[in-house]
Amino acid sequence: MRIGDTHYRTIWMDENASAFHVIDQRKLPFEFLVVKLESVKDAFDAISDMVVRGAPLIGVTAAYGMYLAGLKSDPKNWCEEVNLEGESLMLSRPTAVNLEYAVNLMIREVNCAGSREGMIERLFHLAVQLSEKEFYNCKQIGEHGVSIIRDLHIKNGKTVNILTHCNAGWLACVDYGTATAPIYLAHDQGIPVHVWVDETRPRNQGARLTAYELGEHGVPHTVIVDNAGGHLMQKGKVDLVLVGSDRTTRTGDVVNKIGTYLKALSARDNNIPFYVALPSSTIDLTLKNGLETEIESRSGAEVTHMEGWDDITRQSVQVRILPETTMVENPGCDVTPSWLITGLITERGIFTATEEGIQSMF
Amino acid sequence: MRIGDTHYRTIWMDENASAFHVIDQRKLPFEFLVVKLESVKDAFDAISDMVVRGAPLIGVTAAYGMYLAGLKSDPKNWCEEVNLEGESLMLSRPTAVNLEYAVNLMIREVNCAGSREGMIERLFHLAVQLSEKEFYNCKQIGEHGVSIIRDLHIKNGKTVNILTHCNAGWLACVDYGTATAPIYLAHDQGIPVHVWVDETRPRNQGARLTAYELGEHGVPHTVIVDNAGGHLMQKGKVDLVLVGSDRTTRTGDVVNKIGTYLKALSARDNNIPFYVALPSSTIDLTLKNGLETEIESRSGAEVTHMEGWDDITRQSVQVRILPETTMVENPGCDVTPSWLITGLITERGIFTATEEGIQSMF
Repeated sequence: MRIGDTHYRTIWMDENASAFHVIDQRKLPFEFLVVKLESVKDAFDAISDMVVRGAPLIGVTAAYGMYLAGLKSDPKNWCEEVNLEGESLMLSRPTAVNLEYAVNLMIREVNCAGSREGMIERLFHLAVQLSEKEFYNCKQIGEHGVSIIRDLHIKNGKTVNILTHCNAGWLACVDYGTATAPIYLAHDQGIPVHVWVDETRPRNQGARLTAYELGEHGVPHTVIVDNAGGHLMQKGKVDLVLVGSDRTTRTGDVVNKIGTYLKALSARDNNIPFYVALPSSTIDLTLKNGLETEIESRSGAEVTHMEGWDDITRQSVQVRILPETTMVENPGCDVTPSWLITGLITERGIFTATEEGIQSMF
Repeated sequence: MRIGDTHYRTIWMDENASAFHVIDQRKLPFEFLVVKLESVKDAFDAISDMVVRGAPLIGVTAAYGMYLAGLKSDPKNWCEEVNLEGESLMLSRPTAVNLEYAVNLMIREVNCAGSREGMIERLFHLAVQLSEKEFYNCKQIGEHGVSIIRDLHIKNGKTVNILTHCNAGWLACVDYGTATAPIYLAHDQGIPVHVWVDETRPRNQGARLTAYELGEHGVPHTVIVDNAGGHLMQKGKVDLVLVGSDRTTRTGDVVNKIGTYLKALSARDNNIPFYVALPSSTIDLTLKNGLETEIESRSGAEVTHMEGWDDITRQSVQVRILPETTMVENPGCDVTPSWLITGLITERGIFTATEEGIQSMF
């Protein structure tokens, strides 16, 4: 998607394939910085320091990192070295499923009986392939989802107002994003859209990242606090809710950023379609009841402190926003039960959030 | 209620009744400061600069201010002077209904045909009476509401977990608060309670004020982001929701801080009682359908910027938390339809949120 006048992906190889670049997402939206990663160690740091975030992007960063591990490996000891680097890289963000998946995929290609050159070539192709697959999945989610937006525009004859929560945007992926993909495609096709962006406390991914990426690409949008969505729905100012998903059960329950469930309830109360956009790979067929999923309890510092930009000193500052001794609880996700969900938009098409719908997907 | 080891009200007269004191609420919870108001001009500034906030407290501050206007009036021209001061004082916060009500009540007592001394005495008594009435109303709300908490404790045999939104606490009133009154009484009576405090974006009254006042009084509590309440309800961690009300229609629809409606929806979805605590004076018998109420659109700066405490420089700082050019919308309240409300707790007793319930109240 666009930043300024340039089309970017979140990650790209340099010309001679000896390093790759990522956008430093830690200081967005306040500073835009591209970081060059020249080794698997750089990739490790980028993942663990959250220079990159978002499940798909973490996976692709790890894959490129593994390629660099191969490329820069000691010709005498490359096999053991690459395997060790892989094991180490997996620890860069312990809870990221895509990270483990990508690293394991790469390690399987190493083949110690073959040549070092062959190994490098295979890792290169696999990393590129993984990146292209993430790109393709998001684009396909967009192609399927844009029909919903187009139909609403035809039906209502006016700008389609879409509410989204958190950042299921291109910054979390390679390009397009998941929940944002149908929005970007609609905008690029000339369908008038306007996005209500939930701030998304406590980490403010909506206010910081979704607002930033929509703004840079030129998509009209307005940031609201997480409390405001219900009111806007009551007032007829929301035509569609589009969110992403961390994990979806085989019955269609959706685990996603904390607060998603509240928006699903108010969409239902106001007869507004509520769609979840996701790559089909995030459907966990072993899970039945979403409410039985264990929800990560995250650091209290995300609630007690807030990072922002000091317009006077022109630097980013951490401020405390609670009394010093106050206790906090900070669940990372909640579960939206399937009966509140109008449909699942995947790269394979749009399906109902039911066991039958999901079976028909595969 | 207690701050440290001292029992405070939010407003009190000094010994010789020539000035009064208020708690400066602008820097809470970071700094605790008592401000002495010695003239009606001081009262004007305290209201307009938000040293005091909360409808009941603004009304009482205005009443004390009018008494000081009388006390310090020019003996030769007191009548005109006090009337003019009243008209001016009403402009200190144009949208505050209690302010206008209190000032008008005071002005009606001036009686230019009588003596200056008589006028001063009447204003003194009326201001004290208004303050005591606010005190009494909140205490009565507490007395009625505590029965709900006691019953839940008896039924479940464990700590009662109560979720509250915004600050309907004693800092907004003279003492006790509205939604917090039953909580303080329960705590003081030894009923084990724990309060989930919604942060309440954008102005963070929950995180800043409710957390502060509960903490100082020793009531166990935990701050959560506004997004988290639905999840806690799904997990059985909330036994009761207790909120305040800005305005209630004669059919029982409740206009309250933005986000209240979302909590009411999830309370309903999880079979959790949802009560609104309010003085019966905030019921607007001219209003039928809450959704037709005009909702104030507040300053965008409340969303784009955040005030917090810099733990390094030990001072309060404003930081920007959005991209510089992002548009925001900031509705101040939403409407919780009566069918989502279990009951209204008032100083007159507990009533259903229906036209019949409200009629039986008066």
